[in-house]
Amino acid sequence: MPEPPLDITTRILGIDPGSRITGFGVIDIHQGKPSYVASGCIRTTDVALEQRLAQIYAGLGEVVGLHRPTYVAIERVFMAKNPDSALKLGQARGAALVCMANLGFAVNEYSPRQIKQAVTGQGGADKTQVQHMVTAILRLSATPQADAADALAIALTDGYVRSGLAVDAASQRPRRKTGRWRL
Amino acid sequence: MPEPPLDITTRILGIDPGSRITGFGVIDIHQGKPSYVASGCIRTTDVALEQRLAQIYAGLGEVVGLHRPTYVAIERVFMAKNPDSALKLGQARGAALVCMANLGFAVNEYSPRQIKQAVTGQGGADKTQVQHMVTAILRLSATPQADAADALAIALTDGYVRSGLAVDAASQRPRRKTGRWRL
Repeated sequence: MPEPPLDITTRILGIDPGSRITGFGVIDIHQGKPSYVASGCIRTTDVALEQRLAQIYAGLGEVVGLHRPTYVAIERVFMAKNPDSALKLGQARGAALVCMANLGFAVNEYSPRQIKQAVTGQGGADKTQVQHMVTAILRLSATPQADAADALAIALTDGYVRSGLAVDAASQRPRRKTGRWRL
Repeated sequence: MPEPPLDITTRILGIDPGSRITGFGVIDIHQGKPSYVASGCIRTTDVALEQRLAQIYAGLGEVVGLHRPTYVAIERVFMAKNPDSALKLGQARGAALVCMANLGFAVNEYSPRQIKQAVTGQGGADKTQVQHMVTAILRLSATPQADAADALAIALTDGYVRSGLAVDAASQRPRRKTGRWRL
């Protein structure tokens, strides 16, 4: 059963982790209507692996400190392309997820299909359509950078599911509904 | 060029990260001779992914706080079995590496072959031989749990390389020599 529409403003952080670029997008949901708050990218520099992961961790910590989201969502990885890229993606995801857990968040995961369905109405939509709809829904004057747009799409999906505006397949429901920010 | 033998006691933490079990091993190196300090496993419980990663992060933080290593080493992953296991391993590695970076460590990585070579003298040694040699070198009364033994082997490799007792292929040299613990 979907959650009832929210009558308070809920702030959602969507994260799209990557070893080189981690996108983030922050939206507000008020009475089921999303509005844009912020988005951007954390770009890792050419330093040692553990330092790049620390940049992701610190960058996301800054985003949380600045925007203080109520909820956090991330894309579920179903099948990575190959073991090498899966390892790199996993390391970035690990840094992002452990940062959120250390800040007291539960993190909802959504499948790529679920995100496309929620944002465009079509589970088989392509990346361009998703970016187009993110731009339209949030009334942005320009299409955000790709990773930032993906992160906004993840945040929108979480917002729609929480507002009961997106059907949330039983197997893909948010597992937990808590997770307020705290330090 | 290998580093000169160390005349002070150096404490090395080896980490063998995994999504279910993360092994750790702590040794001292004094005048090129290794001695056992501690080893064990951080077992994640059946909670949400980000909470399991936080358990790895917190567990390793405790190990560092308790044993205060000078250096930290980890196994390099050359090729994971498949994308799914690579993603899971990557997430655990990401949590472990970002923990070490956040605590101020640089982390040296060693290939499986380099670890086998350093510990058994044979790059093609099997896991049992490595565990046997770890037990013998550190004069343990029993073979440690597999992940703990692997972590001790990683720590021994770092100790041997730093003491100039193991040949360190140019491409596999420790990248950095600093990394003292600080909070």
